[in-house]
Amino acid sequence: MKLSNRLNSMQESPIRKLVPLAEQAKKRGLEVIHMNIGQPDIKTPKAFKQAINDFDLDVIAYSFSQGEPELIRTISDYYRRYDMEYEEDEILITNGGSEALIFAIYAVADAGDEILVPEPFYTNYNGFSKPANVNVVPITTKSEEAFRLPPKEEIEKLITDKTKAILFSNPGNPTGAIYGPEELRMLAEIAKEHELYLIADEVYREFVYDGMEYVSMGNIEGVQDRVIIVDSISKRFSACGARIGSLASKNKELMASILKLCQARLCVPTLEQVGAMELYKMDPGYFTGVKEEYDKRRMIVYEGVNRIDGVMCKKPRGAFYVIVDLPVDDADDFARWMLAEFSYEGATLMVAPAAGFYATEGLGKNQIRLAYVLEEDKLKTGIAVLEKALEAYNS
Amino acid sequence: MKLSNRLNSMQESPIRKLVPLAEQAKKRGLEVIHMNIGQPDIKTPKAFKQAINDFDLDVIAYSFSQGEPELIRTISDYYRRYDMEYEEDEILITNGGSEALIFAIYAVADAGDEILVPEPFYTNYNGFSKPANVNVVPITTKSEEAFRLPPKEEIEKLITDKTKAILFSNPGNPTGAIYGPEELRMLAEIAKEHELYLIADEVYREFVYDGMEYVSMGNIEGVQDRVIIVDSISKRFSACGARIGSLASKNKELMASILKLCQARLCVPTLEQVGAMELYKMDPGYFTGVKEEYDKRRMIVYEGVNRIDGVMCKKPRGAFYVIVDLPVDDADDFARWMLAEFSYEGATLMVAPAAGFYATEGLGKNQIRLAYVLEEDKLKTGIAVLEKALEAYNS
Repeated sequence: MKLSNRLNSMQESPIRKLVPLAEQAKKRGLEVIHMNIGQPDIKTPKAFKQAINDFDLDVIAYSFSQGEPELIRTISDYYRRYDMEYEEDEILITNGGSEALIFAIYAVADAGDEILVPEPFYTNYNGFSKPANVNVVPITTKSEEAFRLPPKEEIEKLITDKTKAILFSNPGNPTGAIYGPEELRMLAEIAKEHELYLIADEVYREFVYDGMEYVSMGNIEGVQDRVIIVDSISKRFSACGARIGSLASKNKELMASILKLCQARLCVPTLEQVGAMELYKMDPGYFTGVKEEYDKRRMIVYEGVNRIDGVMCKKPRGAFYVIVDLPVDDADDFARWMLAEFSYEGATLMVAPAAGFYATEGLGKNQIRLAYVLEEDKLKTGIAVLEKALEAYNS
Repeated sequence: MKLSNRLNSMQESPIRKLVPLAEQAKKRGLEVIHMNIGQPDIKTPKAFKQAINDFDLDVIAYSFSQGEPELIRTISDYYRRYDMEYEEDEILITNGGSEALIFAIYAVADAGDEILVPEPFYTNYNGFSKPANVNVVPITTKSEEAFRLPPKEEIEKLITDKTKAILFSNPGNPTGAIYGPEELRMLAEIAKEHELYLIADEVYREFVYDGMEYVSMGNIEGVQDRVIIVDSISKRFSACGARIGSLASKNKELMASILKLCQARLCVPTLEQVGAMELYKMDPGYFTGVKEEYDKRRMIVYEGVNRIDGVMCKKPRGAFYVIVDLPVDDADDFARWMLAEFSYEGATLMVAPAAGFYATEGLGKNQIRLAYVLEEDKLKTGIAVLEKALEAYNS
């Protein structure tokens, strides 16, 4: 039985491929330090589950296709803290940031169209584009340049008559890079000059370090009809399993178009929206503590890996990931080898080989992504394992 | 700013278009009887919310992309009651039946391909196909024939080299028709001879009346590698707002392909899956009471509408919908008029104009769909409003 071609070209998750090896390592009695995935160990605020528990109703009925009005209002209020004015009809609730990204891509690009994405990028940007027959065209950024964007002319060279949008995460997964006002204004100029949409995945908005002030694509003037902001409670409130995301745009025609996609899938779960409202209503002070915790972890990883011979990473400035250059030819082989054959003091390390985050063949082969979402001791153990593993692997 | 063409061709929901009129009627102090939408008033079993309330965890973490193993096991057990043997790796949990349908369509059809669907059909089959650039080709069925399938030759005339699947709901929304073993075997033969998939939307499986025994597409031998079963807890357990669906198939290659789509969107909400497990674990006796209640409602609507002058509907045999032929030229206009200008004893009626359930232009213009998901008294009021409204509209 023939299947569609559109899914053939979808790659398997570069992380999930390693899962069976990790499971086997656990069966051998090893502790596996999971620095491979952005699943934080920070507790989900109690307000989330409490609101769900307190919510009493006889029939779990359909919610509104655009989302629960009160959740939309709390997100509108939340944006105001960042000087973004999104009215209630300019916000839609989605099944995670994932669905917001899918909807954005479908709304701006037809089959055969192209979307520019700075690489390395969140692999699922490809996973969302491929089923739609939309092609991701990479804007290559480099480890040694801390993954900053190339100059305008370099980006413009990639634009064709098929290009419909620039999609990026800021703060960046997997790079930890942050695009400041200058870079955002450059993207805005490109968008205006070439009639493109700007899809800004800002799910890590709160996680910026070194006292930097965060600037959103939603703050840049003159392009707001082109901007689509993607958000999610997953990382922001450590509620990955709740699957509540949102999409915001001031382009009414775009929103009407996306509402049709919302209506087709009927609605997002009622209970999870009830929990999410309480998260967005929390005092912004909540983030101070969380950010301090991540910042501490960031420095442990950044300083820790740079102390290892032949290892290099530039200081990440946001999110909770870092791309690390290793003294190996094939980080995928090294990652598999660590899980299958290596341990140090009863532990081994799971990392994400970075080649899967690049669209350009051959790039990232000596790189891994580490997520610093675990408590201090585990991160230190992880780095110790990495150091010893590299010594053993290279000898 | 240009948008994609793929969403242009998506029609707005034929029901949701009327919502503003219903809201205005409520503001004028009228009771609006909602026979337009399949939102049951049957209580969601308490086990659902209880399980969620009892579920305690510090971090609402990602669930498995394929779904929670325990939920998958309970669904596997549930299928066994219907003599269907779906192993745990042959079932995937989805965001409602909606996502299961989307995944099935994407897995079997490329842009430009066609899927045969008996019409009138659940409008969102179009809403799921259009964004994928897949075309729905209708197999017309008729009110006066109780919406049974046409003979094999008629269906085969519609098949081209672009046809990839037959998609149908059984019991049928919006028709209330049931395809028995003979019709299912005919579809199976067509599928075998023309290399097609069979996507069986069986979310109303329990709701069959008149002592009929339900036969699933999953029970038909010789085609199981072609069959994709779509299910949902929405109607089955009156839990529409939970958004838990599932997809089952014995075709391993297909399942591997769809798993990639599952992985890209990460997972389905954890808490709702915890609730859903308890629903599928309930004693099958639960359905006896629910079915009796729907059966009673069915007869009220079926007998009630047929007593009205010039109104006709064949007895629906399953689900909780009926298509009714009205003595009007334009049921859409009549539906709007009822909401905007008519009331009887303080109430008015909201119905779904049936033209939106047909792909063939001009069909269903004198028809409406009624959902018998409300308690007896409301249904009786609704039918009284319909009778008086038709008298007034036609005079």
